[in-house]
Amino acid sequence: MSRKVCVVVTARPSYSRIKTALQAIISHPNLELQLVVAASALLDRYGNTICFIERDGFEIAARVNMVLEGENLVTMAKTTGLGLLELATVFDNLQPDVVVTVADRYETMATAIAASYMNIPVAHVQGGEVTGSIDEKVRHAVTKLSNLHFVATPKAAERVIRMGEDPASVFVTGCPSIDLAAAIMERPFQDMDPFAKYGGVGPIVDLANGYLMVIQHPVTTEYAEAKNQVMETLYAMRDLGVPALWFWPNVDAGSDGTSKGIRTFRELEGAPNIHFFKNMWPEDFLCLVNNSKCIVGNSSVAIRECAFLGVPAVNIGIRQMGRERVNNVIDVDHDRSAIKDAICHHLANGRYLSNPIYGDGKAGQRIADLLAHAPLNIEKRLAY
Amino acid sequence: MSRKVCVVVTARPSYSRIKTALQAIISHPNLELQLVVAASALLDRYGNTICFIERDGFEIAARVNMVLEGENLVTMAKTTGLGLLELATVFDNLQPDVVVTVADRYETMATAIAASYMNIPVAHVQGGEVTGSIDEKVRHAVTKLSNLHFVATPKAAERVIRMGEDPASVFVTGCPSIDLAAAIMERPFQDMDPFAKYGGVGPIVDLANGYLMVIQHPVTTEYAEAKNQVMETLYAMRDLGVPALWFWPNVDAGSDGTSKGIRTFRELEGAPNIHFFKNMWPEDFLCLVNNSKCIVGNSSVAIRECAFLGVPAVNIGIRQMGRERVNNVIDVDHDRSAIKDAICHHLANGRYLSNPIYGDGKAGQRIADLLAHAPLNIEKRLAY
Amino acid sequence: MSRKVCVVVTARPSYSRIKTALQAIISHPNLELQLVVAASALLDRYGNTICFIERDGFEIAARVNMVLEGENLVTMAKTTGLGLLELATVFDNLQPDVVVTVADRYETMATAIAASYMNIPVAHVQGGEVTGSIDEKVRHAVTKLSNLHFVATPKAAERVIRMGEDPASVFVTGCPSIDLAAAIMERPFQDMDPFAKYGGVGPIVDLANGYLMVIQHPVTTEYAEAKNQVMETLYAMRDLGVPALWFWPNVDAGSDGTSKGIRTFRELEGAPNIHFFKNMWPEDFLCLVNNSKCIVGNSSVAIRECAFLGVPAVNIGIRQMGRERVNNVIDVDHDRSAIKDAICHHLANGRYLSNPIYGDGKAGQRIADLLAHAPLNIEKRLAY
Amino acid sequence: MSRKVCVVVTARPSYSRIKTALQAIISHPNLELQLVVAASALLDRYGNTICFIERDGFEIAARVNMVLEGENLVTMAKTTGLGLLELATVFDNLQPDVVVTVADRYETMATAIAASYMNIPVAHVQGGEVTGSIDEKVRHAVTKLSNLHFVATPKAAERVIRMGEDPASVFVTGCPSIDLAAAIMERPFQDMDPFAKYGGVGPIVDLANGYLMVIQHPVTTEYAEAKNQVMETLYAMRDLGVPALWFWPNVDAGSDGTSKGIRTFRELEGAPNIHFFKNMWPEDFLCLVNNSKCIVGNSSVAIRECAFLGVPAVNIGIRQMGRERVNNVIDVDHDRSAIKDAICHHLANGRYLSNPIYGDGKAGQRIADLLAHAPLNIEKRLAY
Repeated sequence: MSRKVCVVVTARPSYSRIKTALQAIISHPNLELQLVVAASALLDRYGNTICFIERDGFEIAARVNMVLEGENLVTMAKTTGLGLLELATVFDNLQPDVVVTVADRYETMATAIAASYMNIPVAHVQGGEVTGSIDEKVRHAVTKLSNLHFVATPKAAERVIRMGEDPASVFVTGCPSIDLAAAIMERPFQDMDPFAKYGGVGPIVDLANGYLMVIQHPVTTEYAEAKNQVMETLYAMRDLGVPALWFWPNVDAGSDGTSKGIRTFRELEGAPNIHFFKNMWPEDFLCLVNNSKCIVGNSSVAIRECAFLGVPAVNIGIRQMGRERVNNVIDVDHDRSAIKDAICHHLANGRYLSNPIYGDGKAGQRIADLLAHAPLNIEKRLAY
Repeated sequence: MSRKVCVVVTARPSYSRIKTALQAIISHPNLELQLVVAASALLDRYGNTICFIERDGFEIAARVNMVLEGENLVTMAKTTGLGLLELATVFDNLQPDVVVTVADRYETMATAIAASYMNIPVAHVQGGEVTGSIDEKVRHAVTKLSNLHFVATPKAAERVIRMGEDPASVFVTGCPSIDLAAAIMERPFQDMDPFAKYGGVGPIVDLANGYLMVIQHPVTTEYAEAKNQVMETLYAMRDLGVPALWFWPNVDAGSDGTSKGIRTFRELEGAPNIHFFKNMWPEDFLCLVNNSKCIVGNSSVAIRECAFLGVPAVNIGIRQMGRERVNNVIDVDHDRSAIKDAICHHLANGRYLSNPIYGDGKAGQRIADLLAHAPLNIEKRLAY
Repeated sequence: MSRKVCVVVTARPSYSRIKTALQAIISHPNLELQLVVAASALLDRYGNTICFIERDGFEIAARVNMVLEGENLVTMAKTTGLGLLELATVFDNLQPDVVVTVADRYETMATAIAASYMNIPVAHVQGGEVTGSIDEKVRHAVTKLSNLHFVATPKAAERVIRMGEDPASVFVTGCPSIDLAAAIMERPFQDMDPFAKYGGVGPIVDLANGYLMVIQHPVTTEYAEAKNQVMETLYAMRDLGVPALWFWPNVDAGSDGTSKGIRTFRELEGAPNIHFFKNMWPEDFLCLVNNSKCIVGNSSVAIRECAFLGVPAVNIGIRQMGRERVNNVIDVDHDRSAIKDAICHHLANGRYLSNPIYGDGKAGQRIADLLAHAPLNIEKRLAY
Repeated sequence: MSRKVCVVVTARPSYSRIKTALQAIISHPNLELQLVVAASALLDRYGNTICFIERDGFEIAARVNMVLEGENLVTMAKTTGLGLLELATVFDNLQPDVVVTVADRYETMATAIAASYMNIPVAHVQGGEVTGSIDEKVRHAVTKLSNLHFVATPKAAERVIRMGEDPASVFVTGCPSIDLAAAIMERPFQDMDPFAKYGGVGPIVDLANGYLMVIQHPVTTEYAEAKNQVMETLYAMRDLGVPALWFWPNVDAGSDGTSKGIRTFRELEGAPNIHFFKNMWPEDFLCLVNNSKCIVGNSSVAIRECAFLGVPAVNIGIRQMGRERVNNVIDVDHDRSAIKDAICHHLANGRYLSNPIYGDGKAGQRIADLLAHAPLNIEKRLAY
């Protein structure tokens, strides 16, 4: 008997963190994939992730429009409520044997609640990590609603078990995003032209002599400061003058602060060395990361994928606080001089050795195998 | 500066478990109560809890209609989603300094998510316990979304801390429902006439020579069996022939199964020794419990309040599995002979000594004091 | 090319008013039926219409839980809002060529809005009539959102056209509920036993020597009076002492008032000559109507189907005010003596001649033919 | 006794069409204003209307976030459903004596339904007009849900009455937007600097020697063509080379098509003679309109306010089809040469005489007086 596996993807980064698992599920003889694309993954202004999903050849079982405009804390809660209303209908139609939810974005609560209330086992990818802001609460609450835990690191597994989950339900699979990074490393550097392929706005910068990557998200509990924070990074990049590729932030309370900061800066100050993109295939994005001199901002890519890739990283602010990291990361505040200093340090020193802390490149296959064979329960009790 | 404390009450049993805290909050010089009454607490067919709240003199800041008809697993999820949409608006209007959520019913997730996403500290009453069914997942997920934990027992405190909460945020207050029980015990038995005061349906049974109390809820993950389960208890009560007061179940997936079981039994079999009530003041209910020979069913009152009161209890099925209990409880399956045997055993042996495991009768005051003085944070991180 | 016709049924009476059209749509070579069952049609306490639909052999394309508990004016609005959220998803999945909405219940606004906003042509059955209460507003608002109008009477057609609809879009089909009545009349009276087949509550009354039928709905704009109003009818029926079959009201603000009136009366006064039913196959219901001495209450069946059947009717209160009627109807207030007098008058005089004012028994087939061949537009403009 | 008047404003143009009535309501001794600001009126990317409302000194009783991201036909329906859920709560809290809804945007259905279902009389401003697209259906459906009709023209009054409304409930007040226009005309032209006051993007164009105004909205039933349509207008403006002030479209399915068209054009083609604004005080906007040489696009301002102002207008496409117009309007297709020709014709001929077809400048006061004194009913019946 084949198991129906329903995976809910709600945002651009979630897709990168589950893509190789999706491929492995499709290829698995005992699994049937039901892919649900929801929330900002459907929206043009957050990178139109659904287009990439469709071009990658995945069939989409349901689309769920759920993001309320306004981008404040109230709409964040309401978006989740709306998602819960909608996903209950989706799961009722699809009748999956197990639902997979990815990471810790606020709207993933809707997936975990709808499935668990409907007596469908929940598999959670990427639990047990520690970071700042609301994600921290969401991640562990999802763990408590889940029945299977596919974690990235032994330390994460230990945390999930200490929170009272049955050790038999916790598996260190590594993170599927590292699978993409591993594939990139095996591939020779190709002369890709991101400007021709993806457009974007701003000048065509020269990538031949080294460039920086920037990706900076708003931090929800510091809503009002989002604009100031992104301005510091923008000044740092402009002052350094090194060619830079900047990726648009995801949908969050405050994203308008960040977006407005970027738009204001471009209009008033100009950013002659920065090109802005909305989205790319995860592989193309990682290819650019892998060939960059340094990645800057507060994305987890800098800490996770870049540990594996050995790409130097400057991590700004508290968003990644608590996340396990290796020696490729320098942490700084939202301060333009500190950001510049850290980048210069990395530019002088060069790449790091690959570190498999977040996975060895085979996470997707392991997750598919576990989804096919692990016992599926809905009842659980605190283990102590 | 006075703190605004928003308490959300969503059901009859939640009201009993927070009532003395509500009184203490109102009396506290540094606290302002914002009472929100929601979900089944507004509904006539689940006991019209709001009437009791109003007659107790509490002012209601907002009413939230959120229960979707249908009473199945899908509507349970949708009810929560709708509650999330509504409560976000309520909190946005009330701007509380802290939100209090009670226990572990499925719809309490809406309270915890709305508040935490809106950066309002969440205080959770009655975390750290262990039971069966979806409540178990909800309770611990709410713990992970909360910032203050007011638990009933030292063992519950230990569990909350082991789940990674900051020990400085966990307080053993006891359960406010024990406050009500304690007040009842101090009061001499009064000649109350529940039939005159509350009506109900079925014959007026003679309470003078001893009677039984019954309260049996459906168990959500065994939806289809709800009707059969309640029939076993009904046959047991009818066969024993002892006068019995039966309390209607709360709103849950399956409650129609339970309700239909009761209605069918009354119509076809007759229940000449059973009188059915929908709701009472918590104090009147406890007074009846305290003077009964034995409490039967799967309510937590049998395990919690009755530990304090020393009333013998027969606990049926898995609903209270894992909950700490003392020697007043006999556990049995949904089997009419086992239920009858256990009741007979209790009737022969009589009352037990009072045991303060779930509280010493001062929980409400402790909770109010903590709400007034405990540091209110929204950021937290796993403690390991 | 076959047209996909999506019909949304939201309540027991709507099903009777569309059933023969559903059958004709299924049989039509150029139509494909997409049947959506929603709102109170899904609910056990409003007659479990969905069971009858399934037993009639219709395949259900989607179920939409949307009724919020509480049964007041606020939940009526919210139920419609929730239905709109859900039906948009349903139509997006089904991609119908035309959506059919029936009559004038408040929740049909959700159907008409979702379809018209999504550029799907709307066909409205039973527009152009005039009655009391909120139905009046809903009916004509739905007309203004619709593109095809299948009305019951020439007078209704005239009204729809006078409201500015294109005469070419208005068709006098008759009402499909008359099709069911016509089929019943052709059938010889069979010795059906409604008690054995449908259960219900109350005594088994003797139908051999003539009986009355009662069906009384709450009137939404007189919410608080629902209980008193139904009590008048109950006293009238009890006093007359003639055997009576009483049908439970549909879901509306106030239905709890009506239900409570009935329950209170049974408990306190007793109703030895009344048997209560929740639902029946429309055909069985009509068969009982056809063989009754008189129909009492405020249902449109008394005015519409009974015009065709020639069954005497006593219409109570304002609910049917403005509806075209023929000589089988006596109108009275909510007053027990007036009700009794009118019934006695009818019992003395006997049946009336059949009057085809609401249809000739071929409405279903006409509607299917029009759905297959009428031009489907979404643009329209006021015709003056 | 003072009447509580709840006015719901959902968009930038609705505010202009009700502002003088709001002021007259506040000033009226027997009226109390409850102003609800909802939908795109709360959103930065649609002009942040709420800021203008607050700066005009109005107190806001409730804010309703309800716009779902995605901007397609499905989200349009869902936005309305969400608004219905929210507005029911708002009206339940505010308990108004009458609710005022403005014009015909899709989300105004939520206002009209919530109020009418809750037995609150609805006053509709600007019914009885005829235009294209979904607005046409919405406008007349709102009329059928409303109890008072404040229309702009005698022809509109005639249409509302012919649709079956009681003539005693229909009042030709004129449109409050003309009140603003009248005030502007009385004011001498002041040397306002819109660039300094409102920013916007694009070059600072010279207004001294005459300029054009452009405002073009997407047309919902031609969703996919929105981008192409706006490009034609952009090419026409660029080719003419006359300084132009362009105002961003409102929120609608397709607005992203329009927005993207504008952004693409600016990036690829450049628009050296066009400056883009998001929003202004209605008065400043009208002042600019009044002093322009010609207004271009598909806004109703060109047809309504400009009839009064005598400003020449080029109306493009079908959006205003059916709307009463006078000789200041030339209608053209989405064709760049036709647009250019019409503008040139107007530039050669100059201004027109003022025509009071849509009002004499005293609509706001009339509406307030009627809200204070007109009988408030909820029951109504088709007048034929």
